Amino acid sequence: MLRVTFLGTGGALPTKTRNPSSIMLNRDGELLLFDCGEGAQQQMMRAKTGMMAISSIFITHFHADHVLGIPGLLQTLSFHGREEPLDIYGPMWIEDFTRLVIALGYCKLKFEVRAHVLIPGEAVEMDDYFIMTAKGIHSVPSLAYAFVEKPRPGRFDRDRAIELGVPVGPLFSKLHRGESVEIDGKVIHPEDVVGAPRAGRKIVYSGDTRPCAEIIELSRDADLLIHDATLAEDKLEWAKESLHSTAREAAEVAQEANVSRLILTHISSRYSDDPSVLLEEAKAVFENVEIASDLLELEIPFMDKN
Amino acid sequence: MLRVTFLGTGGALPTKTRNPSSIMLNRDGELLLFDCGEGAQQQMMRAKTGMMAISSIFITHFHADHVLGIPGLLQTLSFHGREEPLDIYGPMWIEDFTRLVIALGYCKLKFEVRAHVLIPGEAVEMDDYFIMTAKGIHSVPSLAYAFVEKPRPGRFDRDRAIELGVPVGPLFSKLHRGESVEIDGKVIHPEDVVGAPRAGRKIVYSGDTRPCAEIIELSRDADLLIHDATLAEDKLEWAKESLHSTAREAAEVAQEANVSRLILTHISSRYSDDPSVLLEEAKAVFENVEIASDLLELEIPFMDKN
Repeated sequence: MLRVTFLGTGGALPTKTRNPSSIMLNRDGELLLFDCGEGAQQQMMRAKTGMMAISSIFITHFHADHVLGIPGLLQTLSFHGREEPLDIYGPMWIEDFTRLVIALGYCKLKFEVRAHVLIPGEAVEMDDYFIMTAKGIHSVPSLAYAFVEKPRPGRFDRDRAIELGVPVGPLFSKLHRGESVEIDGKVIHPEDVVGAPRAGRKIVYSGDTRPCAEIIELSRDADLLIHDATLAEDKLEWAKESLHSTAREAAEVAQEANVSRLILTHISSRYSDDPSVLLEEAKAVFENVEIASDLLELEIPFMDKN
Repeated sequence: MLRVTFLGTGGALPTKTRNPSSIMLNRDGELLLFDCGEGAQQQMMRAKTGMMAISSIFITHFHADHVLGIPGLLQTLSFHGREEPLDIYGPMWIEDFTRLVIALGYCKLKFEVRAHVLIPGEAVEMDDYFIMTAKGIHSVPSLAYAFVEKPRPGRFDRDRAIELGVPVGPLFSKLHRGESVEIDGKVIHPEDVVGAPRAGRKIVYSGDTRPCAEIIELSRDADLLIHDATLAEDKLEWAKESLHSTAREAAEVAQEANVSRLILTHISSRYSDDPSVLLEEAKAVFENVEIASDLLELEIPFMDKN
């Protein structure tokens, strides 16, 4: 299971219906949080995403609308008795930021918060996925993140295995894991019964940024790209000045990167209730696009890209 | 006009329907904010209280659920172009806290934030009201606040003034302001035509606290007492340990202080959706009591107490 839940989809100013930025990723029960704007913990309650299983928080940059939910979230996790350490990743300043946040809380947390600075282009490797980063273009140091599953083994050809004389049972798993087996003196190799490795899923979140080559490269062939689309095309100059993207620019990134699906987020308060102009402008460039809304939930299926 | 709007009425853990603590007071358009839990700025939008006219923020204590909305609020005020200084009052640590909050924001505010430490028992005097403080009993230094209007001039007896020969016009105002006037060689004194000064309105907010004599004294004859009522009577031991009040204890404070009306707040998440047990236990002691709910709005009329 790979589920994306939008906890906050607004721009710098929250509105009645859009919280500041925050996105939850649920991979088979492990929760990864990308940005954590004010009110994110209540949105987790409303969306029923859970919060105790958050293993890591990834911060794109330190503007208020992306981070001010962290102190309250930490307090609540502590109240609920969390004891496992929590990893917080972000661009430089994440260590100072974490110290400030803990000082602000004015009470002792019952678990350790471990801050990690990430350099653009650096990856965080986990068991069967990794988080890749790229430099965004914003008014303060900013990272885009890609969640990338490691390739899964190819499909196991059960009929072919039986044909080759492999008895149904544990030897099937052994072959699927990549080990050869011997049956009556004959060696069966994994490639005889297992197809080519299948690509895992890939989700990219741009953070606040101008469109840029780094994020296009990061997004290559992604199943889902979540991109800054703060403004409409008639506000392009303001997008350039404030270092955000227009919806059309986000669509161009999606097209160039050959992603499967695009979700627009960080919607300026001026379009909060009616973002249709953003959708139209993006659709003219890239068809499979939607506007994020608070509590929107998406399941990301495996796609056969071969 | 004197209006109280409850922006957050939950306990330490917010719920889907109760934000952490925050109360807005609107006095003829001037806004005073008491505590500012996470999400308070969005609640101001939902309740349409406005936020640009906030002149002062009063913090009871520095637990996360009472203060984490401040950084986001300051950012939003700055985005909206606020230039007037903002005063923040609270117990000791308010200066360090304010510095932390500004550092956390990671961008420059366009207005000055002035932090003021208040000692329990100290008052802040404004033009025609003052804010009085008392020591609460909580696990960290904590203040209760009373908003107290200065007495208004007594009623002007128009008929009596005409009878005494005062011509209808500016001399009426002069007399009402407390100055004597001379009519055909005869001196008319204010006390001839103006009644006794009338008491202003008084609203008390306890913050998080055990019931205590200081807050009973602070609440004497208040029009409205807003008191911590975190728990029901069967959780009295836990209330003592966590230094909160039960609903019944809050009602006893209201009764002893002879207040007109009691609102219970800081409702523990366990009663968030159904606080009826709190209401029943309080009503057994003090009749004019209600449970606060998020976005509840009250108008406080003048009462003739003489």
